[in-house]
Amino acid sequence: MMQYVTGVKEERSCSIAELIEGTKTGEVVINGAVHVIRDMADFMFVILRRWDGLIQCVLDPEHMPSFDHHLLKEGMTVNVKGELRKEARAPHGFELVLTDVQILSSPAKDSSMPIPIGKWKLNTSLETKLSLRPISLRNIRERAIFKIQEGLVRGFRDFLYGEHFTEIHTPKIVAGNAEGGANVFKMEYFGKRAFLAQSPQFYKQMMVGVYDRVFETAPVFRAEKHNTTRHLNEYTSLDFEMGYIESFYDIMEMETAMLAYVFKRLETEYKEQIELLGITLPDVAKIPYVRFDEAKQLVSQKYNRPMRNPYDLEPEEEVLIGQYFKEECGSDFVFVTHYPSKKRPFYAMDDPEDKKFTLSFDLLFKGMEITTGGQRIHSYEEQVEKMEKRGMDISDFSNYLMIHKHGMPPHGGLGIGLERLTMRLLDEANVRETTLFPRDVTRLEP
Amino acid sequence: MMQYVTGVKEERSCSIAELIEGTKTGEVVINGAVHVIRDMADFMFVILRRWDGLIQCVLDPEHMPSFDHHLLKEGMTVNVKGELRKEARAPHGFELVLTDVQILSSPAKDSSMPIPIGKWKLNTSLETKLSLRPISLRNIRERAIFKIQEGLVRGFRDFLYGEHFTEIHTPKIVAGNAEGGANVFKMEYFGKRAFLAQSPQFYKQMMVGVYDRVFETAPVFRAEKHNTTRHLNEYTSLDFEMGYIESFYDIMEMETAMLAYVFKRLETEYKEQIELLGITLPDVAKIPYVRFDEAKQLVSQKYNRPMRNPYDLEPEEEVLIGQYFKEECGSDFVFVTHYPSKKRPFYAMDDPEDKKFTLSFDLLFKGMEITTGGQRIHSYEEQVEKMEKRGMDISDFSNYLMIHKHGMPPHGGLGIGLERLTMRLLDEANVRETTLFPRDVTRLEP
Repeated sequence: MMQYVTGVKEERSCSIAELIEGTKTGEVVINGAVHVIRDMADFMFVILRRWDGLIQCVLDPEHMPSFDHHLLKEGMTVNVKGELRKEARAPHGFELVLTDVQILSSPAKDSSMPIPIGKWKLNTSLETKLSLRPISLRNIRERAIFKIQEGLVRGFRDFLYGEHFTEIHTPKIVAGNAEGGANVFKMEYFGKRAFLAQSPQFYKQMMVGVYDRVFETAPVFRAEKHNTTRHLNEYTSLDFEMGYIESFYDIMEMETAMLAYVFKRLETEYKEQIELLGITLPDVAKIPYVRFDEAKQLVSQKYNRPMRNPYDLEPEEEVLIGQYFKEECGSDFVFVTHYPSKKRPFYAMDDPEDKKFTLSFDLLFKGMEITTGGQRIHSYEEQVEKMEKRGMDISDFSNYLMIHKHGMPPHGGLGIGLERLTMRLLDEANVRETTLFPRDVTRLEP
Repeated sequence: MMQYVTGVKEERSCSIAELIEGTKTGEVVINGAVHVIRDMADFMFVILRRWDGLIQCVLDPEHMPSFDHHLLKEGMTVNVKGELRKEARAPHGFELVLTDVQILSSPAKDSSMPIPIGKWKLNTSLETKLSLRPISLRNIRERAIFKIQEGLVRGFRDFLYGEHFTEIHTPKIVAGNAEGGANVFKMEYFGKRAFLAQSPQFYKQMMVGVYDRVFETAPVFRAEKHNTTRHLNEYTSLDFEMGYIESFYDIMEMETAMLAYVFKRLETEYKEQIELLGITLPDVAKIPYVRFDEAKQLVSQKYNRPMRNPYDLEPEEEVLIGQYFKEECGSDFVFVTHYPSKKRPFYAMDDPEDKKFTLSFDLLFKGMEITTGGQRIHSYEEQVEKMEKRGMDISDFSNYLMIHKHGMPPHGGLGIGLERLTMRLLDEANVRETTLFPRDVTRLEP
């Protein structure tokens, strides 16, 4: 006798959305975690936590003589029955008067919550929050941060699908070191030396030769030794790369349209979290752009700041550039273009009008770099010449140079740090606040 | 004077879809890569490759006296103008009679294509294809494989969003070793020992305590030393985990409905690739299931095969189980349930009716495991007891056990190997065929 499964089974629980819509009346059955218990002497408030919000339940022991209400404990999960009742002071304007409680699971005996997750704001240090991440994320505001983050990634992808980009999955264990420099994690790979990918750079360029336009949303790894409020050793990179560009401004236009789409998606589909966190969505109908050298000049003049290194942008200068364009044209974003060639990787295309600079850009969001992008060299001869000038051994890059050798369209792209984008959107002071399980020089757990 | 970018710029090229629809008539402008040149003495066929297909162009030197057609070379990218003309023998039934050609980029001087990517099927060995991956993927059939793969991931995500799962991004550099065993890559992390995540297991369970239902599509790493046709050392894992389950069959139901949704999406939105690759989409309206011990018995009887180890399923047995359910009920899929406890990780929930077995399953697709899943232990005491029985030091797992200690709903989930799923769908004999840039014991490049 054959037995079959046939598809999704309805959960034995309604959603909070259904309750808010008012389509459910009378008796309601719902699953949830016991988020907070408030003993009011005659009765108890039991706040249940669901994926889509909280619901206030009223447990009156007299109505449920067969249930020993002393058994109930925060951290339990339950399946409850109850009658909906209007109550202006409850979340969403109603509460559930319980008629039945089934305990589905219990926390450890003698355990108690290590932090008061039921509070509106967790008044604990970042360190404590991170060390207790699996529990602190159960706080409603904490988890809303990462729901917003979901919306950012989802919007990024859906926009790009619509612009006929193809999604790719490229390897994270690699033989070479795309971005150069020392900040690369090494590992042993079956007797060979290997690295963790600092970016999908080589692979996304290879795939432009295949699909014209590609993107990837995946982890990248940077062995940076400095522990700052804006660096992580592992983060999620939103990368795209596009062929047949006429100039690197095409990439900036694509990013501008993408951001507009993403914020629109947040506004409509993540309304609850936007309100819960009090986020003001930025206006990205248009984004100003300015040359690197001009930007340095502008802020030096306006804010009376001496310029130290003409080829470098210090974090404080980024902040001032952000401030300048906020003040001068009300924009939270500004593209800084034409970064110095010596500060950009070997694959960056130099500006034919002044080879000291590149056809590249960063996007600053409220004074912090969240994107690096630009046009890449597509000519084999030009690429080899630039590598040789830098003293690189081109035989180390034969797999990469295969694409230049056999033809690439003019192309470019960018990478966005997801956690930083979230951080600026939420006006957080530390990127760890918007990283689910941060990895830094001292933190490898949880 | 402020300068702004305002959003997406239209590409100076129409798409092949627009040409097929017939909305474009008269003069057409299109970008593309020179895929194949066929010199016909009086004129040339120039096949251009675009993200959405090929287009046959006719270059008659007499019509373009100002363009030296000898300059044209495979691997170039061009922007062409031309007049559309019906031609039954051309792809899609039309060709483009060129009136202008602008060369956008050129391959290296003196280079020639290392493999004939213009052929319908690449008659080269898998090794050669993989070594030349950046170029061999430009073949129309090769690239269609990874477009199908995009559809699988996209469908997986969109289905789960619809079932109120939340997408998460969990760290790949980890302190512990979720799946146990020796097949884990080690690395040094700022003076500490770290590992590459074999699965997001611990993290997705943690996040069930936060969002009830979560998923992730991300790379995982297995240091398996055996080089087989079905193992990779890095692959893309489609993971989900769900709380408030009533039994582990809920997870199987969710997967069945997900697969039905995904194949439907492929049928409608990836029609071109389905036809190009000649894929027959399997019927997943219902999927049979069978206990591990019964399955072994059934194939042993039907195919006269002695059972060797009652606690293990050999690859040949998987093939026979697949064959059995294909023959007996026409299904390409079968869930094998109740795997022996000793073959499953420490977090697997034992069957209360017989603790030698677990409430777990594999999904076989055409006789190969593509999914492993099951219910997890949610009780702190039960989990600690099982770990201690296995001689594990629970102090190594304090971050993980935090969730059990402070309460978890009954829950479970699964992981799907994306490349294997693609492999079985396409009836490929080697998983490397359906991996963009495979990593195995001997291959670390490209």
